[in-house]
Amino acid sequence: MSIEAPDSGAEPALTTIRDQVERGRPEDVAALLARLRPADRAWLLLRLPHQRRQEVLERLPAAAVADALDHLTHAEACLVATGVADPRLANILDSAETEVAAGVLRHLPPETAGRVLEDMQQAEAVTPLLQYHPESAGSLMMPVLIALPASIRARDAINYLRRTRPNPEVIYHLFVVDAERRLIGMLTLPNLVLADPWRTIGELMEPGPVYATTHTDREDVARLLQRYDLVALPVVDEERHLLGVITADEVADIVSAEATEDMYRMVGLVEEQVFSPFWISVRNRLPWLCVNLATAFLAAAVVAVYQSSIATAVVLAVFLPVIASQGSNAGAQTLTILVRGLALGEIRIQDTWRALAKEVGLGLVNGMAIGLVTAVVAIAWVGNPTLGLVVGAAMVLSMVFAAFGGVLVPLTLHLLRVDPALASVIFVTTVTDVLGFLVYLGLASLFLPGLSR
Amino acid sequence: MSIEAPDSGAEPALTTIRDQVERGRPEDVAALLARLRPADRAWLLLRLPHQRRQEVLERLPAAAVADALDHLTHAEACLVATGVADPRLANILDSAETEVAAGVLRHLPPETAGRVLEDMQQAEAVTPLLQYHPESAGSLMMPVLIALPASIRARDAINYLRRTRPNPEVIYHLFVVDAERRLIGMLTLPNLVLADPWRTIGELMEPGPVYATTHTDREDVARLLQRYDLVALPVVDEERHLLGVITADEVADIVSAEATEDMYRMVGLVEEQVFSPFWISVRNRLPWLCVNLATAFLAAAVVAVYQSSIATAVVLAVFLPVIASQGSNAGAQTLTILVRGLALGEIRIQDTWRALAKEVGLGLVNGMAIGLVTAVVAIAWVGNPTLGLVVGAAMVLSMVFAAFGGVLVPLTLHLLRVDPALASVIFVTTVTDVLGFLVYLGLASLFLPGLSR
Repeated sequence: MSIEAPDSGAEPALTTIRDQVERGRPEDVAALLARLRPADRAWLLLRLPHQRRQEVLERLPAAAVADALDHLTHAEACLVATGVADPRLANILDSAETEVAAGVLRHLPPETAGRVLEDMQQAEAVTPLLQYHPESAGSLMMPVLIALPASIRARDAINYLRRTRPNPEVIYHLFVVDAERRLIGMLTLPNLVLADPWRTIGELMEPGPVYATTHTDREDVARLLQRYDLVALPVVDEERHLLGVITADEVADIVSAEATEDMYRMVGLVEEQVFSPFWISVRNRLPWLCVNLATAFLAAAVVAVYQSSIATAVVLAVFLPVIASQGSNAGAQTLTILVRGLALGEIRIQDTWRALAKEVGLGLVNGMAIGLVTAVVAIAWVGNPTLGLVVGAAMVLSMVFAAFGGVLVPLTLHLLRVDPALASVIFVTTVTDVLGFLVYLGLASLFLPGLSR
Repeated sequence: MSIEAPDSGAEPALTTIRDQVERGRPEDVAALLARLRPADRAWLLLRLPHQRRQEVLERLPAAAVADALDHLTHAEACLVATGVADPRLANILDSAETEVAAGVLRHLPPETAGRVLEDMQQAEAVTPLLQYHPESAGSLMMPVLIALPASIRARDAINYLRRTRPNPEVIYHLFVVDAERRLIGMLTLPNLVLADPWRTIGELMEPGPVYATTHTDREDVARLLQRYDLVALPVVDEERHLLGVITADEVADIVSAEATEDMYRMVGLVEEQVFSPFWISVRNRLPWLCVNLATAFLAAAVVAVYQSSIATAVVLAVFLPVIASQGSNAGAQTLTILVRGLALGEIRIQDTWRALAKEVGLGLVNGMAIGLVTAVVAIAWVGNPTLGLVVGAAMVLSMVFAAFGGVLVPLTLHLLRVDPALASVIFVTTVTDVLGFLVYLGLASLFLPGLSR
């Protein structure tokens, strides 16, 4: 079954199949999935309800499942793999690339992983990979089995490749090593093929290639591959011995995962999908909701301080949500730009003052525009010019505070070596609510005689 | 100068150079930049202050600038290019790939683009590319000059490649066409090189390859490349004639740009960097701030309706920010999961009920936990059990409303064929504020005798 992508990509076709897959007999579905491309099989398996997935996985050949796992992120592959009984899973992971097997095992509960690993034939190849941090280059790399010496000629290199029959996917880029297998250069397959057959690899290679070590963070791996438009990034140990390679098709997954992580963290979410199990979602979200509750009480305390002013002029309560909402929206705009700018490497700590100056300036200008409108609406609505002036002035200041919060919260988190996205929306909203209310109700109390008239 | 990436990627080295580049004499800086890798040159050029960039660009050879532009997104390349005078820019774009030149021209003001195009020698090759939508496959593709017939043997294909000396970057994947140049198959260079030299391309190729048309949206392009782990995606016209190719190194840029767009749109931001010109930022942000103001007045109107209740029990005003803050945080959590799930293709419209059931259930469970804490705090603080019960009950309902808003706002936008991220935070906050206040103050009014005691 070949998917010939129409205008909008391959989805319409897959969506049709998906309905069949959700309704058909498990035997038929397994037969259908086995005939699909591995990537499509993976896509569909990932989207099946858990129960159905189990039924289908039981009936698919181990190699077909292994090929599919290769097209998923490690977390996704693990989700699919948990639909399989332990002894069968060992079988499946034996058919998969070592890097995929290690990725799945790293995401399983430790005791399950231990049991599965015991039953695996390639346990010895997989075990060393399990030591790497899941977000490090070590855990993303595929082992490099082919490395060329600098001394041989291009035609001999090509003949060597033909004789050793490597996995075609790992020879887009070829690595050149010295006698101790230390990385000294890189050569793309196109350049090897197009070269004069009599020239040596040492002459053809690009010396001093960009590389990562096993400890390099996946975010930096993605950045290196992206910045240098590499098809493959070599991974070396501390002595620069060539260990593995990370191919460019990982980059998009990393970039996407990092963006999701940032978006989630900003609102206090942990890794979660739409259809993650219910109690996991409860456990993930409740802690930050509690933090938010605590910070909300701070804002409430400010209002409590000014209760007597509100008792004198109840209309003050009406504009509380306007100040709060506008401050938090302006703060969220600044914050989003800063968090994304930090993630993409567009801003550094040294840029703090420049960013602050610009955002505070923007807060002032936008604040004056919004403050003017608010003042006019307040005067027209309530008919009290003093109230209008107080609300308008508080609005300007509240948007300036939002700019300070939006810049300083993520940069402070960054300086503290915490992810600048972490619950940052909650912190910025606290700043804007507390300071916004203080200014608004404080000003109002000063002009109270004019307000209660 | 070779950048040998340490643990944390190549950045530390580049950051050191960056200081030099910002302080040094323009001549020295140009000489230094000319010696760097094009990708590093691009990275530094993009990060220079506008004035300095102009001085340096004047002193760099046209080809060095063109090579750097190739490593930037079209929007970034345009930002750099605007630092160059028109006649010089024509020169630079002549040295660049047609796809890069078209990308820059598409982002320039139309009258500037017209002037530059007139001075360009490759105007004829670039003009047809300008007709494509900037977010379509047509505008991302590089022209394919090499296509193989199915009838020739592997060794003849390799000899043909050597004779025609194509750009090495575009032969990782080879495309197979019929006599009318219609796409019929694909073959990777590794598979060609490793194959028995006497087999024909027709035997070796993978028939029915995945492809895009010139109109395919960049988001779908990224999805196809990602799902099938392709190194290159062919682009065809309506009759399936092979026109161009999009390589995998574009995917990460697309995925990153789409993620930024979603994060920005959620809070009502348009394309903007941290250091975009001040007045552009004002113009970009003010409209959605105004929309937010309008929605904030809706929430204020609800409070205004219940002014007399607040006058009777001023303490009610104290808990307004708690209800608002908690509702909007819970809503933002649900919303973020939905927007990201829609963007990554994890949810479809058919999943609405399932998503709604889960999120509303979560809202209820988390709401009861948070509501209980709120009630206890309120009773301890104010010493009025009725108030505690009212605030607690309002909290539960407000978090349920947040779940409805967080699911239904993005899905409604999606159904209306608008980006589900569009200003969605603003809309969800409106739902939670308005409904949350209605329930809170409505309940409070019912129990007013118990509150004012």
